[in-house]
This record gives sequence, C-alpha cells and structure tokens, in this order.
Amino acid sequence: MSNENAGLNEFKTINKYFAPLSESVQGAFNLTDDAAIIDPPAGQSLVVTTDALVAGVHFLPDDPAEDVAAKLLRVSLSDLASMGAVPAHYTLSIAVPPKQNSSWFKAFSAGLAENQHDFKITLIGGDTVATSGPLTLSLTALGYIEKTKGLRRNGAQAGDSIWVSGTIGDGALGLLAAENKLASLDRANCEYLIQRYRRPNPRTKLGPNLIDIAHAVIDISDGLVADLSHICEISEVGADIQIADIPLSPAAVEGLEKNPVLLDLILGGGDDYELLFTTDPNFAGIFEEVADKSEVALTKIGEITLAKTIRLFDQKGHEYMPHQKGFTHF
Amino acid sequence: MSNENAGLNEFKTINKYFAPLSESVQGAFNLTDDAAIIDPPAGQSLVVTTDALVAGVHFLPDDPAEDVAAKLLRVSLSDLASMGAVPAHYTLSIAVPPKQNSSWFKAFSAGLAENQHDFKITLIGGDTVATSGPLTLSLTALGYIEKTKGLRRNGAQAGDSIWVSGTIGDGALGLLAAENKLASLDRANCEYLIQRYRRPNPRTKLGPNLIDIAHAVIDISDGLVADLSHICEISEVGADIQIADIPLSPAAVEGLEKNPVLLDLILGGGDDYELLFTTDPNFAGIFEEVADKSEVALTKIGEITLAKTIRLFDQKGHEYMPHQKGFTHF
Repeated sequence: MSNENAGLNEFKTINKYFAPLSESVQGAFNLTDDAAIIDPPAGQSLVVTTDALVAGVHFLPDDPAEDVAAKLLRVSLSDLASMGAVPAHYTLSIAVPPKQNSSWFKAFSAGLAENQHDFKITLIGGDTVATSGPLTLSLTALGYIEKTKGLRRNGAQAGDSIWVSGTIGDGALGLLAAENKLASLDRANCEYLIQRYRRPNPRTKLGPNLIDIAHAVIDISDGLVADLSHICEISEVGADIQIADIPLSPAAVEGLEKNPVLLDLILGGGDDYELLFTTDPNFAGIFEEVADKSEVALTKIGEITLAKTIRLFDQKGHEYMPHQKGFTHF
Repeated sequence: MSNENAGLNEFKTINKYFAPLSESVQGAFNLTDDAAIIDPPAGQSLVVTTDALVAGVHFLPDDPAEDVAAKLLRVSLSDLASMGAVPAHYTLSIAVPPKQNSSWFKAFSAGLAENQHDFKITLIGGDTVATSGPLTLSLTALGYIEKTKGLRRNGAQAGDSIWVSGTIGDGALGLLAAENKLASLDRANCEYLIQRYRRPNPRTKLGPNLIDIAHAVIDISDGLVADLSHICEISEVGADIQIADIPLSPAAVEGLEKNPVLLDLILGGGDDYELLFTTDPNFAGIFEEVADKSEVALTKIGEITLAKTIRLFDQKGHEYMPHQKGFTHF
C-alpha cells in the first residue's frame, strides 16, 4: 500500500504537460479545480463514450508515445463519429508505472496536442495515478449532436445497401507488421500498415454527414464481420457480403497475394476504425457527393437480408468458409 | 500482445452485470451502442470529473468488492459536490486482471447498484479490458448545476470563516485500522474508522446548498491542510486554524488519546471526502439551518488571513509544529 503523496510532486510536474491542453476552455480552470464546468450548446444532445487502452493489450509497450496519444484519442473520436456527433471535450485518466519518465509524458502530451488540433477536441480534466502494472489509459470523450438525430446500430432493414469507408483490414495487418510478422512485404507497405494500426483515422467528418441518410452505423473496431454482426443482431436482420467488393489498400492487396490466408484477418481482425453503415439502395446516387464532403472513399460491399445470418461470397458466387471458425455466424 | 477476442465472451458476461445499471436511461441503449446520448437540462451547466483508483494504491486488494464500488462512485460524487453539482450519470472503465472472477463482478455491480440508488446517479457507458497488472478503475461522473452558479476554489477572502463538514481524519486513521496498525483501539471504533475509509460519505446534499453562500469550496481528499492550501494558493490568501475546533469522531478522539502523534495524520492525511469551504463570517447565523437541510454537521475551524501561509494553533494559542515536515507551509 503506497502513500500517493510520495509521488505527488512528480504528478504536479506531469500536470504541467496536461494543463496547457485545456487552456482554450475556460471551464476547465487550467485543471486546478475538482471538476470542469461546460455549457452544452442549446438544442443539442450530449454524446458520451469511454474507452480504455492498456500497454501490451491495445498497443505495443514500445510504440512511440505520440502514436499512443493519437490512438487513444482517435479510438474515442471514432465512437463519436459512429453516432454522428461532433467532438468537443475529453477527460483522461492515466495509471502510470514507475518507469514512465518525463520525456515520455512530454512526447505523449505533444501527441495529444497535435490530435486535439486536428480533430477539434479539448482536454477538460482527468486524473494521474501510480500503478505497479502496465501503463493504463482511459479516455471519456464528449460530443454534440442535434437532438433526436443520433445515429444508431439498430436501424438496418432488409434491402439496405452496406457501405464502408476507407479500406478494410489495414489495422489487423498493421499489428502483424509491427510485430515483424509480415517480413515478406515491401518495406513501404509495411510502414503504411503499421501507421494505420498506430494512427487510425476516425471518420469524424463522415459521421455527421450520415445523419438522415444512414439507417445503422458502427465503427469497425472488433473487425468487419464482428461489427456487421453487432448491427445485424440488434436490427434483427442478416447480410450478404461480396468479398471482392471489400476495399483494400495496395499494402493489404500485396499481403493477400503473398499469403491468401490473411483474408481471414481482413474479414475478422479489428482496429480499422472505419465506419460501416447501411442505407436505402438509392444512396448509390449521392454517395460520391457524401464521400467528397467527408474526404474519404465510400464503397458498397453488400446488402442487408431477412435471413438472420451473415454470408460471405467469393467472386464465383460461392459462399466463403473462413479458415478459422468463430467469426462469421452469430 | 494478447488478442482481446480471446476474452470477448467473458466480457460479454461481465456486461450482463453492468447493463442493468443503465436501464433507467434510454439514451444509454442498454450499453449496446458506441456511445450514450443524453439531453442536458435546459439552462444548466454540465459538470465533469474523472477519478482513477488502482488496487494496492487507492484501496486494499482484499477490500470487499461492494466497498470498492462504493468508494469509486463516492470519490467522484464528492468532486461533484464540491462544485455544487447534482449527480446525474457516469461512465466506467475497468482494466481486469485474469484472477478477477464473476463472483467479484457480481458483488462489485451490486455495490454500484446500491450506491447509484442512494446517490441518484446512473451508469451510461464504459469499457472493460484485460490487464496483466492490478485492477484499475476509472470513473467519469457528470452532474448539473444552474448556469454561472458553480462553486470554485478560488474565491476565499481575508476575514472569511473556514468551515468543514462531518469529522476530519477518519479516512487516514481508517486506512491504518484496515492495515491492523491501530490494534490498541476499541474494536467498534476500529470498525467505524475502516468503514469511513472504505465508504466515504460524499456531501452531495451540502454542495448544492452552498451555492450563493460559499466563497470557495474543496473536498478533502489529499488531507485537511493540503486541501486548504489548494484554496489558499489559488485564492492568494492564508489561513489560521484552531486545532481544538477541528471536529473529530469519538474513534479519532480515542486514537489521539492513545497516540498523540496521530494528530499529524488527522491534519495531513487524506481520504475524508468532507467539504471544506469559506464563507462570510455572518454565515454563523444560518449554519445550523444549512447543516440540517444538508444532513451533516458543520464546524467552523478557523479563518482566512492576508498572510500567504497556513498557521495551526493549539489550545494555548501556540503555533503547532507538526512532527513530520512537508504539509503545513506552501
């Protein structure tokens, strides 16, 4: 049982790195009070999401501190995007192992600052504590959305088109690359995948643009099929997916050519943080306009069915059976 | 690097314990969506606070799960109280070591349910992840307060009276008792102190009743003198405290009689979660009414001075010098 006071001065130093991140919000009181006081915009709903990341589980212990900061923020920003919300504020709690030094905190807070700026979200509070375990980060993000307009998972209807943003599978392949398990790949492609794993791109512009358009939205964190199954379960529908239509990055294409078994990982791996959504089929007529506005490619990969199962089809129209069990049928 | 999917079913089970805690809030979507959607009451400000607790640092690893749940919620409720806010919602992130079993989660969620009911606060989201380290809990609490009415630390003025709620020092003595380091004390007194440490009473009724009355408020988490110094530093004032006026529980009185050195712990120890606040001197005329309404005793312990130092006086009017250095002068 350690007395926290022992580390208090250290934490005061750490707080020096965090307080500047809050300075644009008067009600954060420079992180010197017991809580922040925020005035939500009139007529808006508040959207709240909490995510935790643990070193050795959600990121590699040696990942650069700036990338850990980026991932932490972007994972929550992706959750806000999937509800259609515009980011506003966040609080941060950090459980710090003894070995974490001030240069790490300097780099970590610089990473937060850069991503705050890019995604227009501001720190308003938090807690820094000691731990004997791995570095553990928890972030609560707050965003706003016009009342009654929030996007949900539960509105998918038979006949809906299924769309995804960006490219799929890069997150899971990027983790392999970061662990030096994709050595046969072109070096630049490896680097690309690692960056996709470490710095996912939350689709914060796309989310709000899907309001009044998407019937169901989810961000792909558990994996394409797993997250599609979350939508199908709660919407009480099924889905047919055309594997050849799933958008892949050139790096993922190279990986797949060299090792076709990686297809399972593309379908079942997580950490893409793209949005998957369903729409009325005539969205096809305006998808390019929405994609342009949202600065991300959109691709139709299948459709929602009445059957309560997810089916994956290859180019010959045969149902694809994954090499590993456990992720296609729910 | 573990793949989280391995534990996914386990976490689904855990979520069964948490989902019922959210059922009174429609916008929590039974914890099945990416985020919660809440409508803040019109004309109110949102108050946000985040606190983290780590097993072995903030609570004893063998503390009952119900007490850990109680402490986790009550620490944040105390922060809301010190701003004058009325509790509303919270999110919870839990990093779980492998040994934490479902009976622990059952007891923990039962503790949350009991405290939610008592303090009128509801779970709206969170994240459960695996860790190789100690159990790590982070809670973000949301409350509301009438716009512009939030209580702060920075308004203390020379001549203000200094008040505290309840009794002081029980938290720090309770930790000693829980560690079997107060064996000479009456058994019932020991139990009382342990309960005060494990289940602090956040003054959620008192906080809102101090609006338009208190000039500065803080909750006593770091210790009486340390938290008073937080107010003094940011208000740019000092304080004179009469030690004999500090309200003590009968258990603390017994402890002090048996070991006078414990006075340092009463002045400098933390975990009381009482409110310390400063008021115009004529608050003395109405303090009983406020205390009755708030269901807690209020005691004047000193006054704010122009000198930028905190002085502690014994019954003979001599300045008290603590046995340990480092907590009286800032």
